[in-house]
Amino acid sequence: MKLKVYADRLSQPSRAVLIFCKINGIDFEEFKVDLSKRQHLSPEFKEINPMAQVPAIVDGRFKLFESHAILIYLACAFPGVADHWYPADLFRRAKINSVLDWHHSNLRRGSATFVLNTVLAPALGLQKNPQAAAEAEKILYASFARIESFWLQGKGRFLLGGLQPSIADLSLVCEIMQLEVLDEKDRNRILGPHKKVMQWVEDTKNATKPHFDEMHAVLFRAKERFQKQRLMEANSDGETSQKSSLRSKM
Amino acid sequence: MKLKVYADRLSQPSRAVLIFCKINGIDFEEFKVDLSKRQHLSPEFKEINPMAQVPAIVDGRFKLFESHAILIYLACAFPGVADHWYPADLFRRAKINSVLDWHHSNLRRGSATFVLNTVLAPALGLQKNPQAAAEAEKILYASFARIESFWLQGKGRFLLGGLQPSIADLSLVCEIMQLEVLDEKDRNRILGPHKKVMQWVEDTKNATKPHFDEMHAVLFRAKERFQKQRLMEANSDGETSQKSSLRSKM
Repeated sequence: MKLKVYADRLSQPSRAVLIFCKINGIDFEEFKVDLSKRQHLSPEFKEINPMAQVPAIVDGRFKLFESHAILIYLACAFPGVADHWYPADLFRRAKINSVLDWHHSNLRRGSATFVLNTVLAPALGLQKNPQAAAEAEKILYASFARIESFWLQGKGRFLLGGLQPSIADLSLVCEIMQLEVLDEKDRNRILGPHKKVMQWVEDTKNATKPHFDEMHAVLFRAKERFQKQRLMEANSDGETSQKSSLRSKM
Repeated sequence: MKLKVYADRLSQPSRAVLIFCKINGIDFEEFKVDLSKRQHLSPEFKEINPMAQVPAIVDGRFKLFESHAILIYLACAFPGVADHWYPADLFRRAKINSVLDWHHSNLRRGSATFVLNTVLAPALGLQKNPQAAAEAEKILYASFARIESFWLQGKGRFLLGGLQPSIADLSLVCEIMQLEVLDEKDRNRILGPHKKVMQWVEDTKNATKPHFDEMHAVLFRAKERFQKQRLMEANSDGETSQKSSLRSKM
């Protein structure tokens, strides 16, 4: 029976799992759980993952959620997966686990909170929290600095000095790609100064071609929609301020 | 060469690692990194862990931080560790990884943010953020509900229906113990309704005797200090309000 992957390509951990399956030739079926239609909250999906989050997998009778746990499981359960994704070596594996744990409270936390409180909240009909966004920006900026000064130190082009990517590269880079939906000036301010991070994103993208671009296509379409929306809001604000400036002249 | 564990017993992940070493008879040396004296920020400690956080270990030439990664490493690297802590079975191991990942963005996030913005901030000379505390309380309460309705479902007394504890039980229970430093009425409001969680904490404590109590002794002393401090503040507030009420009568 084929592996089932429940995912929404607009979610960064979903993309990481999908790219991993594709590049390792894992035979799987993708089931879209449309977050914008709140399908993750449906009773059917909660049977798969009671926490109502994507991604989740079903492998025969075995159900699993949390993307890092899924990536580790897939790397260990499917014999065709190359060792560099999650090395059998105890020490290298421990270091990858360390990056993945660090990700949760640093890059992931900063990125998810910043995107929510800038771009996503209005789209979801929620109130933005500017203080939360400001704090998240600090966490995000500090995370990039740490990636540059620590995790990307070493011989190779990948995390922990790897010559080839691991599941940690995939998970963290998919997280960073989520920043594509931001206003360009926000994205440039936070990511721009971190050239080494940008190069590593590019390297990971190239190492996982053509699946990386395929799985991110939907994100780039979302980016365009958000850009158009911002433009329309700016124009309507312009008109409003023109009108109010006219009003003040009257 | 003995394993070196860098820890402060007032930190919940430090205690999880120390209890794990003790109960599994791992020969180790504990190096105290006193967080209240900001020793984690010293150049010496940053040589061990550039992220300046406890716990961290040094095993021969190998350095590692992030408590979940450390627990997994120790369970795999030391042959005397019983299988139930981190089973070799792929499926059970994957489920434990899933709990540990979930912990980061749920229980850990709620607990750390709530304790910081109620008890710790004043002690550290920082400003409390009541909005952050209120949001953290929601996350914490929801996390307990999830532990009861999902993670503690099953035959055994431990997470995932285990008959004996795993590293996930140890990590999550040490996190919950941190709530001991809270004002009793806060702790009872959040933890009180979750009887199953409280029983599981008790079961984990009993399964890791006497090391659990030994490693938590310092937390109970901190609890007493915080209680005294609150009492003094309440008294001085009482005096202030008496004085001001006297003043208003004058």
